[in-house]
Amino acid sequence: MSTKHFLHDPTHLVTASLHSLTLTNPGLALDTANKIVYRRPGYGPAGQRTHIVSGGGSGHEPSFAGMVGPGLLSAAVAGTIFASPGAEQIRAAIMGRVEGHRDAEARGKGGGGGVLVTVMNYTGDVLNFGLAVEKARAVAAAGAGVEVEMVVVGDDVGVGRAKAGKVGRRGIAGTVLVHKISGALAAQGRGLREVAQVARLVAENLVSVGASLEHVHVPGRTKPDVDSAEYLRDGEVEIGMGIHNEQGSSKEEVELPDLVMKMLAQMLDQSDEDRAFLKVNSNEVVLLVNNLGGVSVLEMGGIVTEVVTQLRESYNIRPVRILNGTFMTSLNGLGFSITLLNVVNTDIGGPSMIEMLDYPCEATGWSSPISTRTWEEKITATREQDFSGGGEIRPSGLKMDGATAQQALTRALETVVAVEPEVTRYDTIVGDGDCGIGLKRGAEAILKHLKSYPMSGDAVVDVANIVPIVEKEMDGTSGAIYAIFLNALVASLRSQGQSEASPKVWASALKQSCDALSKYTPAQPGDRTLVDALYPFVDVLAQTGDVKEAARAARAAAEGTKGMKASLGRTVYVGGSGFEQVHDPGAWGLASFFLGLAGISSAIQQV
Amino acid sequence: MSTKHFLHDPTHLVTASLHSLTLTNPGLALDTANKIVYRRPGYGPAGQRTHIVSGGGSGHEPSFAGMVGPGLLSAAVAGTIFASPGAEQIRAAIMGRVEGHRDAEARGKGGGGGVLVTVMNYTGDVLNFGLAVEKARAVAAAGAGVEVEMVVVGDDVGVGRAKAGKVGRRGIAGTVLVHKISGALAAQGRGLREVAQVARLVAENLVSVGASLEHVHVPGRTKPDVDSAEYLRDGEVEIGMGIHNEQGSSKEEVELPDLVMKMLAQMLDQSDEDRAFLKVNSNEVVLLVNNLGGVSVLEMGGIVTEVVTQLRESYNIRPVRILNGTFMTSLNGLGFSITLLNVVNTDIGGPSMIEMLDYPCEATGWSSPISTRTWEEKITATREQDFSGGGEIRPSGLKMDGATAQQALTRALETVVAVEPEVTRYDTIVGDGDCGIGLKRGAEAILKHLKSYPMSGDAVVDVANIVPIVEKEMDGTSGAIYAIFLNALVASLRSQGQSEASPKVWASALKQSCDALSKYTPAQPGDRTLVDALYPFVDVLAQTGDVKEAARAARAAAEGTKGMKASLGRTVYVGGSGFEQVHDPGAWGLASFFLGLAGISSAIQQV
Repeated sequence: MSTKHFLHDPTHLVTASLHSLTLTNPGLALDTANKIVYRRPGYGPAGQRTHIVSGGGSGHEPSFAGMVGPGLLSAAVAGTIFASPGAEQIRAAIMGRVEGHRDAEARGKGGGGGVLVTVMNYTGDVLNFGLAVEKARAVAAAGAGVEVEMVVVGDDVGVGRAKAGKVGRRGIAGTVLVHKISGALAAQGRGLREVAQVARLVAENLVSVGASLEHVHVPGRTKPDVDSAEYLRDGEVEIGMGIHNEQGSSKEEVELPDLVMKMLAQMLDQSDEDRAFLKVNSNEVVLLVNNLGGVSVLEMGGIVTEVVTQLRESYNIRPVRILNGTFMTSLNGLGFSITLLNVVNTDIGGPSMIEMLDYPCEATGWSSPISTRTWEEKITATREQDFSGGGEIRPSGLKMDGATAQQALTRALETVVAVEPEVTRYDTIVGDGDCGIGLKRGAEAILKHLKSYPMSGDAVVDVANIVPIVEKEMDGTSGAIYAIFLNALVASLRSQGQSEASPKVWASALKQSCDALSKYTPAQPGDRTLVDALYPFVDVLAQTGDVKEAARAARAAAEGTKGMKASLGRTVYVGGSGFEQVHDPGAWGLASFFLGLAGISSAIQQV
Repeated sequence: MSTKHFLHDPTHLVTASLHSLTLTNPGLALDTANKIVYRRPGYGPAGQRTHIVSGGGSGHEPSFAGMVGPGLLSAAVAGTIFASPGAEQIRAAIMGRVEGHRDAEARGKGGGGGVLVTVMNYTGDVLNFGLAVEKARAVAAAGAGVEVEMVVVGDDVGVGRAKAGKVGRRGIAGTVLVHKISGALAAQGRGLREVAQVARLVAENLVSVGASLEHVHVPGRTKPDVDSAEYLRDGEVEIGMGIHNEQGSSKEEVELPDLVMKMLAQMLDQSDEDRAFLKVNSNEVVLLVNNLGGVSVLEMGGIVTEVVTQLRESYNIRPVRILNGTFMTSLNGLGFSITLLNVVNTDIGGPSMIEMLDYPCEATGWSSPISTRTWEEKITATREQDFSGGGEIRPSGLKMDGATAQQALTRALETVVAVEPEVTRYDTIVGDGDCGIGLKRGAEAILKHLKSYPMSGDAVVDVANIVPIVEKEMDGTSGAIYAIFLNALVASLRSQGQSEASPKVWASALKQSCDALSKYTPAQPGDRTLVDALYPFVDVLAQTGDVKEAARAARAAAEGTKGMKASLGRTVYVGGSGFEQVHDPGAWGLASFFLGLAGISSAIQQV
């Protein structure tokens, strides 16, 4: 259990957190004294006659204050962390923080307007919200205030009938589906009677269960003795743990597939007399997988896939909506809950539960961004094409003498192979010693390739054929750098058009490749990397068209790195050789690049 | 650092998690081999010509695969946890998993269509994505495939210039703003040149910084020695820690206000030569506070409020959009980051950055549900009314003799006070011993009230005047139950209409109150609670209209609880007395209720 927090004072924390909702949604206001977040006057559909008030202890965010907004709740009342708000706070919300519609005479669809109070089944919440409701009713009986209905949600099957007794099931994350669906109906201008009826219907058709790896620490409370038997050991999961650390049904050493199997059985097994609270038999089932706050989004995704797979394979249930997110937390609890809604006919001659679930709303705490259309189009098409960069390479018309090029490149590569011990020796001193071997491996692979597939004389085709070999054989950061350079070279050679691959043409293409490379590595001449030799080679070749002069410039630049300080992590001068041997036209660029590798290495080796 | 996970195999975890996105958004498909999540053909605006591909190591969910959807990314490529995907995976995404538009000739706004590759500034990502881009360009140069642009995002100011050197700033959560804004522009049919230009402009106008309380554990890796100096001590925060546990700028014992102060200074202090990466001087600033995965939503809210307050007070910055959520995680890292976007003119004669930020999109990973209208209406109205249930109580016309009622109630309350020692004695045996004292405190307070404000003879007014006293003096679970009953009694008495408050009228009202109470407590006769005596009293009173018979029934029922087993937690029979003394008409209901409290107590005292 992590007991670390950025804010430790629970009173300030709750107030500041409620206040933040008015910042992330300026349509909301906060009654600080009563800890009520509510929609400002005018924020929401004009025709709304029924307003939903909910709430409970803090520590379950985004429930409930984060669910306030058009299409969802009209106000939420917060208690301190894990404690019910007082009846007086709730009364203030019902009677003073939502639009009060007394249209009993002018009844529209679903009866007159009013306030629906939806609350989770915890003794403190039920009594405090209940008291507030009765107080409001006492006023309504005198012809003032508003009509009020109350719905209590108990969706958790974690504690079975025998243990829960008459107290019944606790409310957990399924509650947000009650809010969402009844909120959509309220937003559509329906009356209190219908909104309450649908809210009850949703509540009656929910099953949920949670599982946690740890109890959660409440800011401001003393650090518990986590070695006590109450806490979970490494590898242990508590199935059915409540959202206030309440005891679940069992602690077990169980991993994911089995854990999900056990959880789904608690929700769905009709032969379990202690549970079997609901027969999930609708053609339309909604699945909500809820993060209790501290599970990584990565892991939540893995859990969702497991749940969906088992629902299909073990129960033939294919949910029509699958929601994965953080809807009702236990602070940053390392756990999740699964909720199933058995969609039934709302019997109000109006929108279906699914339509109301999809209905637009505006609340920072509700995340279900996928539209009805996307859910129902059920596109199954995929993209399976592969436009490979390799394979068939279109001739460029940029000509060189194939045999001469092959000879020059072969000599250059043999030089690379030959200097391996020298490169390795230097790289062992300042690097991890794999630079020489990597270069040798790449050079040998290209040499082997050239024997089977001699160069054709089309500069683009010949360079392009070498690219996959470099990509495959020369790995790591420097391998990627070589591959980027050569891929860029293919593109830049092709852009030279149909002509003879003269030294100037090569220089132009090489220059473009250097520019491309510079976008992906910050290495510039002077940083004691490969480019110290490569750039002067290219520049002088461009200026003079003379490969000998270019090679001399590269050699000199390589020697010049001796006194330099490496500025990009741990880079190394490992001697230089071979440039002078590349005198043949046709393969300068490629050969000189490999010689550059051998001569000045190893590019960027960050510590 | 918690090393607990529901799924431990990192390979399965990543694949299963990517797969879940196709379940929570059926418009998406997964190329499992290449770990690419992409939009299915036909999913997205028909006119879209530019497609955005992003990605990076896994462990940052919902980035990036969760950002795939219309109005955002077209495809995302995932690596293993905290490791870049390979160039070949990325190439497959660019060239085969997004719509390939080659409309260079038929150029629309912003040039021809193509693929924008947006990536965060990490060596592996830049090189692998860069290589894939160059490979795609080599193909494009041959007239096939698509045009490609690449934008690298480095928004993190945590590591200053001196330390970061030429490698530059890391990319963190600000990247999602680049995605959102460029994604909106792409969805509007703009060409690659413009989309890339705006993406770069956003990237150049970002500053972010993170802070963490713990390093995060990667599933599948060995459990580290958390006592090593590398890890954070209790109370210590690492400012600037990266999203792969990279070292930040400092480890400090600092709490929230100071922590935020230091973080904002790193982002905004123009005199800090090592940082001052961006002058935030726009009239429009966007604030994004990002959960690194493991901070409770409650605490995130508190952090947002602190950040907004300091921005206003210390920098006179009032963000026009404030986003709080989980956009880019470090698994379930116990940390957060702050990002500021300095909104500048996009210079494309088109939508502003804010318009693009607000532009609709459909992706499970993007949460910014608040509409432009709500942001810009800036409603400031609040609801300050208080329709108190107390205060002025409208006369009901339900008449009784005030003096007689006062006498009867006084005697009943005196009996409650007198039996306190007996109640306490029983409650000490099986309860926490506060039941008698609580009843006595309430009874004495009502007695005191009755002396100053004698009963008026209007049954509703007289009961309603007692309600606030009970609510104030009688606390806890049983206090709420008494208050619910009495509030319900006020409403039900009023519903009797104008008449004489006969025994039958009282019985009718009391029956309604019992019904109301039963909605908030599962207690039924037989559970050994207060209602064991109350219900028979009310029932017999209704049947006979004879208070003596009703009182005898209550007394008998109370005696009958002796042999019962408490079934609602720890409930207790504590003797019964006084019913026989209530012979006077007028105050039966109320008096009998209090006698019921004294006689059969204490309601529900859950262990």
